[in-house]
This record gives sequence, C-alpha cells and structure tokens, in this order.
Amino acid sequence: MQLTDVSNGLDTIWVVLTAAMILLMEGGFALLEAGFVRQKNAVSIIMKVFVDIAFGALVFYLIGFGLMHGRDLGSVIGSSGFLLKGDLSHLPTNITSDTFWLFQCAFVIAVISIVSGAAAERIHFRAYILYTIVMTGLIYPISGHWIWSADGWLAKLGMIDFAGSAAIHALGGFAALAAALFLGPRLGRFGPEGKINIVPPSNLPLASVGAFVLWFGWFGFNSGSTLSATNTGIGHIAVTTMLASAAGCAACILFTMLRYQKADPPMVINGALAGLVGITAGCAFVSDAAAIGIGAVSGIAMVLVSEWLEKRRVDDPVGAFAVHGVSGSIGTLAVGLFALPGTASHAGLFHGGGLHLLGAQALGLAVVAVWGFGLTWIALKLIQAWRPVRVTADEEKIGLDVALHGVPAYSKDKDFIDVDELRNPTS
Amino acid sequence: MQLTDVSNGLDTIWVVLTAAMILLMEGGFALLEAGFVRQKNAVSIIMKVFVDIAFGALVFYLIGFGLMHGRDLGSVIGSSGFLLKGDLSHLPTNITSDTFWLFQCAFVIAVISIVSGAAAERIHFRAYILYTIVMTGLIYPISGHWIWSADGWLAKLGMIDFAGSAAIHALGGFAALAAALFLGPRLGRFGPEGKINIVPPSNLPLASVGAFVLWFGWFGFNSGSTLSATNTGIGHIAVTTMLASAAGCAACILFTMLRYQKADPPMVINGALAGLVGITAGCAFVSDAAAIGIGAVSGIAMVLVSEWLEKRRVDDPVGAFAVHGVSGSIGTLAVGLFALPGTASHAGLFHGGGLHLLGAQALGLAVVAVWGFGLTWIALKLIQAWRPVRVTADEEKIGLDVALHGVPAYSKDKDFIDVDELRNPTS
Amino acid sequence: MQLTDVSNGLDTIWVVLTAAMILLMEGGFALLEAGFVRQKNAVSIIMKVFVDIAFGALVFYLIGFGLMHGRDLGSVIGSSGFLLKGDLSHLPTNITSDTFWLFQCAFVIAVISIVSGAAAERIHFRAYILYTIVMTGLIYPISGHWIWSADGWLAKLGMIDFAGSAAIHALGGFAALAAALFLGPRLGRFGPEGKINIVPPSNLPLASVGAFVLWFGWFGFNSGSTLSATNTGIGHIAVTTMLASAAGCAACILFTMLRYQKADPPMVINGALAGLVGITAGCAFVSDAAAIGIGAVSGIAMVLVSEWLEKRRVDDPVGAFAVHGVSGSIGTLAVGLFALPGTASHAGLFHGGGLHLLGAQALGLAVVAVWGFGLTWIALKLIQAWRPVRVTADEEKIGLDVALHGVPAYSKDKDFIDVDELRNPTS
Repeated sequence: MQLTDVSNGLDTIWVVLTAAMILLMEGGFALLEAGFVRQKNAVSIIMKVFVDIAFGALVFYLIGFGLMHGRDLGSVIGSSGFLLKGDLSHLPTNITSDTFWLFQCAFVIAVISIVSGAAAERIHFRAYILYTIVMTGLIYPISGHWIWSADGWLAKLGMIDFAGSAAIHALGGFAALAAALFLGPRLGRFGPEGKINIVPPSNLPLASVGAFVLWFGWFGFNSGSTLSATNTGIGHIAVTTMLASAAGCAACILFTMLRYQKADPPMVINGALAGLVGITAGCAFVSDAAAIGIGAVSGIAMVLVSEWLEKRRVDDPVGAFAVHGVSGSIGTLAVGLFALPGTASHAGLFHGGGLHLLGAQALGLAVVAVWGFGLTWIALKLIQAWRPVRVTADEEKIGLDVALHGVPAYSKDKDFIDVDELRNPTS
Repeated sequence: MQLTDVSNGLDTIWVVLTAAMILLMEGGFALLEAGFVRQKNAVSIIMKVFVDIAFGALVFYLIGFGLMHGRDLGSVIGSSGFLLKGDLSHLPTNITSDTFWLFQCAFVIAVISIVSGAAAERIHFRAYILYTIVMTGLIYPISGHWIWSADGWLAKLGMIDFAGSAAIHALGGFAALAAALFLGPRLGRFGPEGKINIVPPSNLPLASVGAFVLWFGWFGFNSGSTLSATNTGIGHIAVTTMLASAAGCAACILFTMLRYQKADPPMVINGALAGLVGITAGCAFVSDAAAIGIGAVSGIAMVLVSEWLEKRRVDDPVGAFAVHGVSGSIGTLAVGLFALPGTASHAGLFHGGGLHLLGAQALGLAVVAVWGFGLTWIALKLIQAWRPVRVTADEEKIGLDVALHGVPAYSKDKDFIDVDELRNPTS
Repeated sequence: MQLTDVSNGLDTIWVVLTAAMILLMEGGFALLEAGFVRQKNAVSIIMKVFVDIAFGALVFYLIGFGLMHGRDLGSVIGSSGFLLKGDLSHLPTNITSDTFWLFQCAFVIAVISIVSGAAAERIHFRAYILYTIVMTGLIYPISGHWIWSADGWLAKLGMIDFAGSAAIHALGGFAALAAALFLGPRLGRFGPEGKINIVPPSNLPLASVGAFVLWFGWFGFNSGSTLSATNTGIGHIAVTTMLASAAGCAACILFTMLRYQKADPPMVINGALAGLVGITAGCAFVSDAAAIGIGAVSGIAMVLVSEWLEKRRVDDPVGAFAVHGVSGSIGTLAVGLFALPGTASHAGLFHGGGLHLLGAQALGLAVVAVWGFGLTWIALKLIQAWRPVRVTADEEKIGLDVALHGVPAYSKDKDFIDVDELRNPTS
C-alpha cells in the first residue's frame, strides 16, 4: 500500500459519496415540485424527474459528457469521452474518469430538473422527454465546456464558477423561464383585469421534505466540487454554504413577516434554496460575511422577482426562475465583487482586484442566460413542429396524472379502482 | 500516525457511511410499500419495517452473523462470531469485525424488507415477527455463507455475486413469492371469471420518495461492498450502478408508453429498482454496455412478470418478486455471460470464459431460489401451526392499521379522536 | 503529498459528511413533528424547524460558538471564536476550525429542534424565533462549555458525554418540558374529571419517514463525534448505536403488545429514537450488551413517562421530554454504571470504577436539567413580557398554519385558492 493509493482512494470515495448526495437531490426536486403543484399533477411532475435521471444519465453518457469534458476543440466543444471512451488524460483530477463522470452526471441531472418545475402542470410528457435529451446532450454540455473546461473560451477570459451558480443554476433558470413563457400560464391562473389566482400548494410538508433533502445534497454539490478530499478549502466551502442558506432562509422569514404580516411558507422554503444557489459559484472564493450577504440578497431578490413575474403574468409554478435564474445570476456576479485575493487569478472588485473578474463574470452570465433561454426556445419550437408541447385544455383540467399517466397521486377511499372511471373524470 | 492507520481509518469510514446509506434504504422500503398499498394498511407495512430493523439487527447479532460469517464448518455454516465473540480472524478485510458486522447487518435488514412487501395488507403482525426471526437468524445467513464465505460450497464451485443479486435479492424475491402464495390474494383482488381488480396505490408521491431513497442507498450497497476504499473498482461500480438503473427506468418508460399508451408510474418506479437489482451481482464485473443491457432487460422483464403473475392470480402487492426475484435472477445469470476477463476466476461466456461461470451462477441461483422459497414455506407452516399467519377477513376489511395497531395512517379532519370509534369501523 | 495531508483530508471529509447527515436530521425532526401533530398545524411546526436552522446557524456563528468552544474563562464560558475569529488553537482536533464549527452548528440546531416539538400547536411564531436566539446563543453554548470544553467545570469533575445524551438531549428535553409546562396543554386536550383526549397523529407515514431520517443521521451524530476518521472506536460506536436503537424499538414493540394488546405505532417510532438518545453518551464507552440494555430501558421508560405525563395533564405533543429528556438522562447515568475500563478516566460502577464516575454523571445531569429547565422558563417569561408566547384561542382553533402562515398544509380539492376564504375559516 502506497500513500498515493490511499490518497486516490480517499478522493474516490469523497467524489462517489458526494455524487450520491447530489443524485439524492433528485428526490428533493421531485418532492418540492410535487408539493408545490396541485395534487392532480403531483405524479406527472415526479415522472418528469424520473425522466431527468433515466434519460439524462444515458444521454450524458452517450453524448453530453464528451461534448463537455472531452478534449477541447477550438475552446468551444469537447471531442472525446463519448461512452467514456477515448483520450481523457487532460482531466485535471486524480480520480478515474469513471468516478469523474458520475459526479458530472449528477450535475447534468440537476440542471434538467430545474426546468421541469417551470413547465409543471402543462407540458406534455413526450415533449418533455425530447427536451431532456436536447438539454442533457447539447445545451448544458456545450455551455458547460465554455466555463469548466480549462480551454473553454469563457474560462480563458477568466470567468470562475466553483460549483455552478452560472453553469448549472443560471443556465437552468433561464431555460426554465423560456419554458414557462413558451408554454404560457396554466388555465385560469390569470383572470381578466389583472386578476391573479393563487394555486394552493397541494402538500407543503412534502415540499418541505424536498427542501431538506436538497439542503443535505448541497453539501455534496459544493464541497464535492473540489473533486479532491485533500483540498484544504473543504471546511470553508461547507461553512459558506451553511451560512448563505441560513441567511437566505432567515431573510425570507423576516422579509415576508414585514411585507405580508406572516412568514410565508413557500417563500421560506425557496429562500433557503435561493441562498444555496447564490453561494454555489463563490463558496470557495468569498468570506463568511460575504456568504451571509449573498444568501440574504438572494433570498429577498427571489421574493421580489416572484412577485414581479406574477404581475407580468408569467406562470412559473415552483419559482424555478426566481430561485435558480435570479440567485444563480446574483451568485455569479457576486464572485466578481467578493472573491478574496489568492482564490482566483483576479480578486473581486471589493478586494482590490479591479473590474476584470466582474467583467468576466458578467459576460459569462449574459452568455449563459442567452444560450439557455435561446436554445430552450428553439428546442421547444422544433419539438412543437412534430407534436404539441402543451397538453390539451381537457387534459390540463383533468390533471396530467390521470390524463397522461392514468392514475391519481392519492387514492384514499377505495379498495379497488375502476380503470374506466379513472379515464372519464367527473369534473 | 502510520500509513496503515490512515488506510484503516479510510476503509472504516467508507464502510460505516455506506452501511448507514443501506440502513436508510429501510426508509425507502417503508415509503415505497406504504405508498403502493391502500391507506388503511399504510401504517401496518411501516411497522413491519420497524420489525425488520429492530428484530433483524438483534437476531443477526445473536445468531445470524455467526452462522453466516463465522469460521467455516464443512462449507455449510459458520461457527463463530455469535454476539461478535470468538475467532473472526479469517474475515478477509482490514476493517474491524465491528465495522464488518454493521455492514452485514444492513444487508440482512434489506433481505427481510423484501418479503414484507409481498405479504402486505394481510399478514398478521405476530406471525411476521416470528418469520423475521427465522429469516434473519437462519434462512439468509446459511445460504449467504454458501455464497459469500470463501469456504462456502457455492463459492468454491466458482459462483460470484458482488453485492447480492442472488444472496440478497433473488433469495428475498423467492421468499416473497412463497409468502404471497402461502397467504393467498387479498380479498376481492381477483373476481369470478378471471376478473382482475386493481388496487390503487394510496400515495404515489410517497412511493416515489421511497424509490429515490433506495436509489441513493444503492450506491452504498454496491460501492460499499468493496469493503475497502482503496479498491480501484469503486468508480466503475458506481457507474454501472447508475447506468443500469437509468436503463431500467428508461426502458420501463418507453415500454409502458408503447404497451399501455402511457408511462405507467408504478412500473417506472419499479423499473428503476429492477435495474438496480439486476446490476447488483455484476456491478464490479461487467462493462458499461453490459450494465445498460442488464438494466433494460431487468426493467422489461419486471413488467412482463408482473402481468403474468397477475394473470396467474398471484397477488404480490408491491411487485417484490418481479423486482427482486426476477431481476436478481437476471443479474446473477448475466454475470455468467458478461463477466470481463480478470474480474473473476473465469470470464463470462461472451468473453471467452466458456460455460463454467454461467454454470456456477445457474446452479447457485437455483439453490438460492429453492432454499428461499422452501424454507419460507416451511417457516410459515410452522408459524401457522401455532397462530394464524393471515389476519381475519374482518381485520382485512377494516384494514390492518386500525384492526391491529389501533390507529389510522392519516387523521385529517379531527382535533381529537374517540378510541372506541376507531375500533368499531363503520365500513 | 504528505501523509499528514491525506490524514487531515480524511478527517475533514469525515466531519463534513457526518455534519451533513446531522443537518439532514432537521428534515427528520420536521417530518416526525408534522406527522404527529394535527394537519392544521403541520406547516407551522415545519416552519419552526426552518427557524431552527436559519436563526440557529447564524446566532451560533455570531455568539454561541465562541461562548461554547472559545478559549476558556474560569471554566464557565468560552471567550474567542465569535464569527470564527480569534484564537482557537486550543481546539483538540486536526480539522480546521471551519470544519469543527460546521459539526458543532449541526449539533446546536438539533438541540433547539427538540424544544419545537413540545411547544407545537400553540407557541407563537414570533416568540419561537426569540427563544431560538436565546437557546442557540446562550443556554446551550454555556452548559455545553461546562461539559465539552476540556476546561469546563463539569468536564474537570470527570463528567463524560460522548455525543451528547446530556449536553444535547437532556438539555433539550428539560427545556422542552419547561416549554410544555409554561405554555400549558392544547385546548381540549384534557377534559373535566380527568378525561384525556387523544390527538390523532395526522400523518403517521410522514412521521415514520422522519424517524428513518433521524436514524440515518444518528450514525453521523455518534460516529462523527470522534472528529477523527482514524479513531479506532468508530466501528464500535456504530455498532452500539445500531444495537441500542434496535433494542429500544423492539422493546417498545413487545412492551406495547403486552400492555395495550397492540404494537402502538407512535410508541414504536419513539422507541427507536429513545434507544438512540440513550446510547448517545455512552456509545464509545460501553459494551454491546450494555448498549442493548440501555436501549431497551430507554424505550420502556419512554412509554411509562409518556403515560405518566399524560396523567399529570402535561401536554407534550410529540413526546419530546419522554424521548430526549428521559432517555438522555438514562444514557448519561448509564455511563457511570457501564463505562468500560480504559475508555475514560474512571470506569463505571459495574466495571470496578467505583462511584466516582456515576457521581460526576449524576451531578452533571442534575445541573444540565436545572439549567435547561430554568433558563427556558426565564427566557419565556421575558419574551412574554413583550409579546404573547401562546397564540390566541381563536388562532389555536383555526390552526397555526392558516392563522399564522396563511396557508394550509394540504390543499387537495381546489385548483385555485381564495385568499380571503383562507383567512376567514369556516370552522
């Protein structure tokens, strides 16, 4: 037994365990979304998370991983590593390419899950599968290459994004916004003369479980992104992650108590997540105090953007854009302000590094936002040309669970079920 | 501090953490089963999982572990390690026998939990406790010794089973089939003239949580089975686990869309699990491509066997046999086909190893199936001689929660409860 | 790469991963409590867990950690480490102070969560936030310093408490009792002439999920308390944890079958937790057999104390005192009886160590109980002087979810919600 064997084993289990934690976040997404939507669509949203994992992992194995992490071609795409084959010696890590793939696979599944929330209650299942293939095979891998490959053009310009406020959350958030706009609001969500109808979350305890699971997984998401267990920054990363999420959550508790005279449960749940999204880019680069600030600002911005979107009659059922798009953007830019000297090639503006890093972050964010939004819109247009992306009004009224999957989420009063009845709803 | 101290510490935390992940799978089993059964039996199935853990751990500590992992007697049973005492120096691992026990304890609890699903909604609580003691104290430990002790007779014949497609899942699955047949179908499940009544899952979001928790735990189940963190196969094991489960789930999505014109939620949930069960034997031995194939075949076979059992009027409420018995069998045999050269004493048939390994796998599987089915039938017969194994028709109609445990799963509309009312059901 | 780098990395990931597991226990507390209370209060109890994490982490960062783990002043309080700044070189660990803080932060959040259960369904949200600040900033850190700082006065007297049966669970349990007494019983809980009304748990499957999550997290709680992955006791700690919880759960299954003619689900759930609480102090110090005994006694005592409190008309909705206060006390004293020679400065009474250790444990327990109860009472009195600690009778009847947070836990039959209706309950 050599020291290097032990060290490699240590790195390997660190990455495998944190990857498993990130995969568990899929359970978190599923529950959060199932709890926030109406019960007639609770199963359909969970089925989409199964699509995220199943199709996401296979497509990323076949195509996405190679485009993202393969040997660089012109700073734009990767070109090896499809089916985990070919030259991957450039990967800057001690772990095997197998182990590295697993971690990256967990990431791509997280990206697509962000979009599922914004499309909830009205996207067709078939269309969603096709979109998942495009997102996990092309959209995310290519922009991911720009940011996270050492030779990607955004990385070369100096953009940094430790665990993906931009590469994952802003991309997913802007893609979610595109999906929400493309699909349009749920029937009856907005009435005439500016009337706004609130969709009651069907199961807030379930949504809360989702948040706690996501919170747990995020320690894998951020700390695991070191890809090495001997990285001395792990403790600090975990602490900034904790503080930012606590600040995001506390800020939303206090802010909604002031603004609505009550601590608003969905906002409190999303506030914790907003803090987590916000710190994801900077967890390794910023101070504890900056982490608290980033978390608090992310939380409050999430509330305000949620309100603003609603007034603009944009229907994002679980707040995917407000949580991931907005907080991801804040977190990406905050690195340009708060990055401590020595953590990156340039320090942030407030630590004497000038505007260079902030500029790179802003450019990268703009690119990712346009890319995520634009490609999602195009993908949905192409899918639309073949089959409807949105379910019919009848299917939407019945609910996607029964209309598309033939089974309700909850069947509490019957010993046996009559399949015919299921498909001929009484409402 | 010596290198060996660090290495031992590394192995120890790897095994403790993965064992904890496997124990969390009990939560997964509980939720999966509670979500699939009717709400009037949701608590009773969860209580059985508490029995699995509580009695399983104690009985395995007192008896089972010694029989399974103790010093070999005649290639048939172990003979030391009861109460973790006696000579355990033969254990082929760096970790302490304490740590090794914990991991094996997590495994035995998983085995018995497989059976609880097939017996759901009609087995008596008392009888279940007794059966748990027999399964965790005798049935599983003895066949487990044959496969996993270096001196076990099946191991000597060349059978390999990395993390237990046969030793755990096929054994549990065939025991589950015996229990389902012994108990007979639930009242009203099958009508006259071949009519089949469908039991609606009471809470599909809950069942889905269960699947996600099981998925997470499986990375501990398979990767942790190295029992060493410096095993260079860990990354590959985790990747084959991911790919097979994704393939099983994706195959069930597509197959049920073709077959039923809808992605069927319970089948999709079980499809992911079938893929996981299928790859459990071979995760360390087969290629990525083989893993995808094993997962997909396991998923589709699960659907077909579920249908076939239903037509045969066999009532397995959560699909325990279709998921664990069938996929466990597929996975065990697949090792004989796909094992790569160098991973075992013989390669699989498709890799130039001839029929030797396939023969050993087939023999081992047949032995485990007969053993699991036969001993379970005998155990239930013996229990039946003392007290009824099945609840009365009245208790079954009322539901086991109120009839046996005096409390319903969900009490949503009452501030206070009248105990008398609870015990005099209105239905 | 030096051996010490690898060793430090190993310790770091051990502590970060176990800290994340402890944080996930908050999800467990939330679900356990939400499942045990009435559905009209399910969201409000979960919101309190969000307060625990959000305010607990921030206050502990600002104040609590320094008071607890800072450089000792007179064996009474710590005096450095506020905002993780100042001299922390005295911390007896290889990991960074960042990493150490994270683990301790997970602990403090667990303490306050214990109290939330006892105060459920009637404490005002505002008051709860204030109490959380006092508990996590002052009460727990100060008594924690006495026990866990090497220079703390109880530590110097010889008290030992491996992972916190006293420092966390007894403290939290006695604080919970004070809160339950201060608030008084829920309306209608106790009728005239000694009539006891039972509150039906609104969602037992959800409560069970909570228990499984707590069980998983406890392996982080106890094993992680080594703060070092090369501690050779980790395997034994995990085994005693498993055995004690199994014994607590099995004892409650059998005891309630004898006493109530049915295995009582809430008691079985709490029995597993009681076993876990009981072994928390001694997991590293006692034998396997003692662990089984401690677990079984803790489980049965929990049942008896729950009954006794109910007869005394004390209303503790989730059994926080019976689980944490009583089992924590048993576990703390049991160390004085069963500590094995060589594990502490004195062995326990039954292992030839005489009465010294038992005396130290008893004194420490008494101090912690008085401190936790007394300071909580004083804190609630002070809060009461400013704003009501208990909600109004109307708010209680409506339920805290709608009355305080404006939203019900479950909204199953409506597509859209009328906010006015929500705030004008029909009941």
